[in-house]
Amino acid sequence: MSTLRLALAQVNPCVGDIAGNTALVLDRCRAAHEAGATVVAFPEMVVTGYPIEDLALRESFQRAAARATEEIAATLDAEGMGGLMVVLGTLGVSRAGLPFNQAVVITGGEVAARYNKHHLPNYGVFDERRIFAAGEDACVITAASSRIGIVICEDIWQDGGPVAQLAALDVDLLLVLNGSPFEEGKGRVRTDLARRRAAEVGAPLAYVNLWGGQDDLVFDGHSFIVAADGAWMANAPGFEDALLLWDAPEPGAAPVQGPVVDFASDAEQVYRACVTGLRDYVEKNGFRSIVLGVSGGIDSALTAAMAADAIGGERVVGVSMPSSFSSQHSRDDAADLCARIGADYRVQPIAPLVEAFQGELALEGVAEENLQARLRGVILMALSNKEGHLVIAPGNKSELATGYATIYDAGSIGGFAPLKDVDKSRVWELARWRNAHAEANGKTPPIPVSSIEKPPSAELRPGQTDQDSLPPYELLDEVLDAYVEHAEGRAELLARGFDEAVVERVLQLVDRAEWKRRQYPLGPKVTALAFGRDRRLPITNRWRELAE
Amino acid sequence: MSTLRLALAQVNPCVGDIAGNTALVLDRCRAAHEAGATVVAFPEMVVTGYPIEDLALRESFQRAAARATEEIAATLDAEGMGGLMVVLGTLGVSRAGLPFNQAVVITGGEVAARYNKHHLPNYGVFDERRIFAAGEDACVITAASSRIGIVICEDIWQDGGPVAQLAALDVDLLLVLNGSPFEEGKGRVRTDLARRRAAEVGAPLAYVNLWGGQDDLVFDGHSFIVAADGAWMANAPGFEDALLLWDAPEPGAAPVQGPVVDFASDAEQVYRACVTGLRDYVEKNGFRSIVLGVSGGIDSALTAAMAADAIGGERVVGVSMPSSFSSQHSRDDAADLCARIGADYRVQPIAPLVEAFQGELALEGVAEENLQARLRGVILMALSNKEGHLVIAPGNKSELATGYATIYDAGSIGGFAPLKDVDKSRVWELARWRNAHAEANGKTPPIPVSSIEKPPSAELRPGQTDQDSLPPYELLDEVLDAYVEHAEGRAELLARGFDEAVVERVLQLVDRAEWKRRQYPLGPKVTALAFGRDRRLPITNRWRELAE
Repeated sequence: MSTLRLALAQVNPCVGDIAGNTALVLDRCRAAHEAGATVVAFPEMVVTGYPIEDLALRESFQRAAARATEEIAATLDAEGMGGLMVVLGTLGVSRAGLPFNQAVVITGGEVAARYNKHHLPNYGVFDERRIFAAGEDACVITAASSRIGIVICEDIWQDGGPVAQLAALDVDLLLVLNGSPFEEGKGRVRTDLARRRAAEVGAPLAYVNLWGGQDDLVFDGHSFIVAADGAWMANAPGFEDALLLWDAPEPGAAPVQGPVVDFASDAEQVYRACVTGLRDYVEKNGFRSIVLGVSGGIDSALTAAMAADAIGGERVVGVSMPSSFSSQHSRDDAADLCARIGADYRVQPIAPLVEAFQGELALEGVAEENLQARLRGVILMALSNKEGHLVIAPGNKSELATGYATIYDAGSIGGFAPLKDVDKSRVWELARWRNAHAEANGKTPPIPVSSIEKPPSAELRPGQTDQDSLPPYELLDEVLDAYVEHAEGRAELLARGFDEAVVERVLQLVDRAEWKRRQYPLGPKVTALAFGRDRRLPITNRWRELAE
Repeated sequence: MSTLRLALAQVNPCVGDIAGNTALVLDRCRAAHEAGATVVAFPEMVVTGYPIEDLALRESFQRAAARATEEIAATLDAEGMGGLMVVLGTLGVSRAGLPFNQAVVITGGEVAARYNKHHLPNYGVFDERRIFAAGEDACVITAASSRIGIVICEDIWQDGGPVAQLAALDVDLLLVLNGSPFEEGKGRVRTDLARRRAAEVGAPLAYVNLWGGQDDLVFDGHSFIVAADGAWMANAPGFEDALLLWDAPEPGAAPVQGPVVDFASDAEQVYRACVTGLRDYVEKNGFRSIVLGVSGGIDSALTAAMAADAIGGERVVGVSMPSSFSSQHSRDDAADLCARIGADYRVQPIAPLVEAFQGELALEGVAEENLQARLRGVILMALSNKEGHLVIAPGNKSELATGYATIYDAGSIGGFAPLKDVDKSRVWELARWRNAHAEANGKTPPIPVSSIEKPPSAELRPGQTDQDSLPPYELLDEVLDAYVEHAEGRAELLARGFDEAVVERVLQLVDRAEWKRRQYPLGPKVTALAFGRDRRLPITNRWRELAE
């Protein structure tokens, strides 16, 4: 009786790139074969990328996905790897034309089995009931005399269904293909759940997850294996490629320890998630370089550091666009930042442009402040047009949620906003973490200390600071978290003990920001943000929590 | 035995405005009572507005909706209208906390029955399985000795379920509460379907629909009643308030004809849908006025005419922003347009602004063209900031889909794009229809004839016309319709007989436009557009139809 050597291929496919993903799968199969694996498992929908949304309904896309499976089977066989069993996720289609979120088992140059995901998540960022039909049958395959049950992601998050079916089918291993997005603290929730499901089926559970960025989502990898008794058998690191190998025990024997790596701290995981999301937005969309405004403030400094970590400082252009209200320390900090990260530093004063506009329009007050901010946006767009850079926006979640930002300015235009889900308190925390991480590794900290320590200001009028308009960020972020992320109403917020005046101020700010966005919608990322990134709300909507 | 006098209240509620919608319901109940109605029926989710998306999951919102039903029941009773039976749609919640899309029957100051929608649409623009639990029971109420079965919208679009249940329950009337969005030609589909369902239950079918705009959706009203044999009993006009009264026959007797109005032509319906969507975006969000750029071209002329029809020309500001490439006829046409519609006409040449920017940035080619276009966007935003107008964007569907537009220019910034789902061929058709409609009514045609007749041009360089860059619009729009609206692939397009070179050119244009939008996402309306307004697609996505 041969031993089952399992390989979990933690990879980063690209949505829609079926040819590229097919090559990626074949490459990892070769590596797994070379490492002596009996079975190699890939994440959910690795062939198509994930999530594919309404591409699932496109017939030409369905045909291409079907051809990819055939190509993988034929190529492996032709290369003498027909004996390797490959389990991968893809888009399946029933005879009646219904799309499935499917696991395919390939061996001997053929498809040996197909499993269709039962539980289709349809909440938060997921819309699977829109595009997939639900499977009904359990799937057990045999490799090296081991009986392996296969399920997909949400199948282990719901009670009943395929895991309950497999518990009665005497399996030796439960293999779970996942496309599970990163959330802070989710690693612990996942592993607790996996231990419970391993106990339920009475067998080890192997969890293989995607990693990489896809628009608003970041998948963190963190693939792992737990034994039936919950013992930690092996795991892969987060946010990178991995081929996690593990020798399953002979049926009835004690499980053997595999490779184990430590989890990073929460701050490090959030930082890496932001960098991964940005890098994949750039690389998967085929951009060559990034341009952003650098003001000397903390948001643009952290964003620029993330950009340099994502694609290298030499591919980042930082543009300082001082006005007559910009302080000398801001200009110095912007220059210092770009030197530290190795970015192309440019200076484009906006005074002559403001003057030309004011000669024609004679604006005052907020309109004048916004004009300055927007002319910076036009400069970045012009550089992007001329030189082909992706414009990125350093706006953070606290200011976007409260509307403390100019729409179409350098903080909100462009294709990607790395800090859109990071509140201001966390901005400071990540900046400090990044600098300390550099110091601990003998590197230059990327972010000027004065950018971290000075009071935040938009510098659109003399002496302005954020706290002229907003509650202290620590308090603001706590209320926003309850209101925005946890969808608590006014009554719930007061019951938590928040001061009534603060609650009313924050709710007014968010309502006002929602209204401003009606005047100039910014895009799905920002529009959805004030009530949480995973919620959908009508734009035209008169519901006011304060009136409740 | 008294006769059942039915009133269908075709109304335009506002999402989230529970107090306002409650007042609207009470007002229509009073009118129905005064008209001697026995039963008054309101559309789907009239109390909350529709669609409410994730507001359905918010507990404070659920509580407010529940209170509204109690308030309506108590108020009617207190005002001596307890004998009127009211059927209305709202958000219901089960004891276990599950939200329902619910019909509530109020009579005698109390809720007499509740019906929960069975079939939850989860395709196109609908996401109801995300937010609602499905009902299971049929609902029959008795009024004036007639047995009335109640269902909601999608319930009649699917076979089986509640209509099949009611067919076995011997009802005298099938009452359908709807939130059915406008699509061109949908009226015919709806009435054919209603006739089939009336035959299925063997009773007349009364169809009451919302009207009004909600973000990307427009509800058209067009409420109606058909007899069991399909005879057309009564109907309300589209796109306006109506209280449609009909005396139901005694059980077994022949049905009586009610009021009937003609349907408008397809062009008129599309025009009215655009105006309704714009007006409700303005009014429901509380804007007072609109500003847009007027170039002398057909897109901005039609958009301005729609704006004047929506809220009155005196609330519209048209800004001509000529550059050195703008022709005299363009300026004349822009002035003529604003005079015809009674808009506030302003001229703001952009030459001094372009000069100031070019003195600093020295752009050439497309970057220079885009700069001109974007400075116009900044001017409109400045006027909006200063004077409070909503900025609207005249971009049409053909140019947005092919990327023949500058991102963040006067054609694409702002809060609402009335022509975003109208292709260029249809732009000309609607302009001609609007002028002919004015002439037929002895009014001044709003759109200058030369704006309709001259060759389209962006006027960003000397002698430029759209056809330098695009296939003829008639052909382009036909290919776009198949590719974008009907999700046909390359193979299907060639099988239709389109020329291969044209297909490849159009697919390249759309792919390139999608890529440009990745660099600067514009908002949900436009991002989704290139593959149809009712489809969702990943932004980061390497699928290319041309490679298929």
